[in-house]
Amino acid sequence: MRSIALTIEYDGTDFAGSQFQDGPRTVQGELESTWRRFTGEAVRWTFAGRTDSGVHARGQVVSVRTETRHSLATVTRALNALLPGDIGVRAAYEVGEQFHARFSAWRREYRYVILNEPLSSPLLRRYALHVPDALNVDAMEQGVRTLLGVHDFAAFGTVAQGSTVRHCFDARCYRMERNGRQLIEIELAANGFLRHMVRAVVGTLLLVGRERLAVEDVARILASRDRAAAGSTAAPHGLYLEAVRYPPEVWAMSPDSEGLV
Amino acid sequence: MRSIALTIEYDGTDFAGSQFQDGPRTVQGELESTWRRFTGEAVRWTFAGRTDSGVHARGQVVSVRTETRHSLATVTRALNALLPGDIGVRAAYEVGEQFHARFSAWRREYRYVILNEPLSSPLLRRYALHVPDALNVDAMEQGVRTLLGVHDFAAFGTVAQGSTVRHCFDARCYRMERNGRQLIEIELAANGFLRHMVRAVVGTLLLVGRERLAVEDVARILASRDRAAAGSTAAPHGLYLEAVRYPPEVWAMSPDSEGLV
Repeated sequence: MRSIALTIEYDGTDFAGSQFQDGPRTVQGELESTWRRFTGEAVRWTFAGRTDSGVHARGQVVSVRTETRHSLATVTRALNALLPGDIGVRAAYEVGEQFHARFSAWRREYRYVILNEPLSSPLLRRYALHVPDALNVDAMEQGVRTLLGVHDFAAFGTVAQGSTVRHCFDARCYRMERNGRQLIEIELAANGFLRHMVRAVVGTLLLVGRERLAVEDVARILASRDRAAAGSTAAPHGLYLEAVRYPPEVWAMSPDSEGLV
Repeated sequence: MRSIALTIEYDGTDFAGSQFQDGPRTVQGELESTWRRFTGEAVRWTFAGRTDSGVHARGQVVSVRTETRHSLATVTRALNALLPGDIGVRAAYEVGEQFHARFSAWRREYRYVILNEPLSSPLLRRYALHVPDALNVDAMEQGVRTLLGVHDFAAFGTVAQGSTVRHCFDARCYRMERNGRQLIEIELAANGFLRHMVRAVVGTLLLVGRERLAVEDVARILASRDRAAAGSTAAPHGLYLEAVRYPPEVWAMSPDSEGLV
């Protein structure tokens, strides 16, 4: 028995989210049925973070306990050959028995991409939220920085059970041009995120960018712990789970492991 | 009667190419049926360049003679509301009666995008050709520069009728990183292109990059005028029609017109 972790990328467009459901097409469902086809093992994979329908991942981390003796290179090659085109393995790692993709993670990084031009882009329609309005990005940047540190984020999301307190390590908002397109990107990193948290933050920042809320309102909303006080949940297709980080101790055996720490 | 030109963007994935066909879904077919729905006019639109199934456009130019009195802003808004999500109008222009999207163009610009990493990317699977092999990009750059100037390009494509001589104004190949992904881009600009020309050039450059052809072989292939001497036609999904340029004289009435000249 050994533990394997994978970094996977997926295009969330045609999935009913990451988490297995009986019926709808999910990332977990595709991964598990492909794994079974490859190894014969009917096992449950653990996901670092749950992503909703339409949300993309460039660095989701998943792990499994397995009897397979295939090398990491073979696992990667076989899964990439067998998985549908909208899921791919980007890296594979040997991890310690104690490793758990979800509970061992100490930092999760999300990015939200906004196309901020008058007209929409057919090539980006599934990969960025189109906002034609003028946006005050300086105010958005100041607003998002309000979230840095340890806070109760109940105003920005829900949780099935337990605390709504999280530690936000990094929060940025900036304009950039990529491939001739005018984008605004919002990056958030935290030890964990509530359900819909990044999208609720983005919905709120869009109100700040449109100057319908002041920068100071973000702190007020955060303190209210009232979901109704924040902006609406921004559309899923601008959101990317970029990376998940783990403490060095739980990455053990593989020389490749540094990549993710 | 007036003439209108549009710059349009499309995701070529789900089209059987740009040119109208009776049955299969095409860019021209969607544009013409949408135009008819908007204006009642059953007219044929002229396209600056023909793109194959799977080929994308960020700056295709199309034109029409029309009786409609709608402003350019209304035309743009209405078409973007009525067109399917994988086609969009990026700009609209009043042009002179003598303007012809295809015959008036003096320069067409194409880009080909290669994902040059060991593993494929689900998010780029429709937008870049995945080449996992090590490629000598310096050799590819030298090879592509062989094409600059006036040449008979018969080795790199076909033409329904007429000359296979074209003037290549610009030819580049370079590595770049975009969004953390290692890409190689090939840019070609010419007064016109033969059928499959950019993709045949890319197929040939990939042989140069893999050092199965020498840089000097590109000149030899060009001189041979023999399509069988060149590399195979690279896949369509890495190719983008980026822009089409016109002489200032044929852009007449619209203050917006400078954008395209």
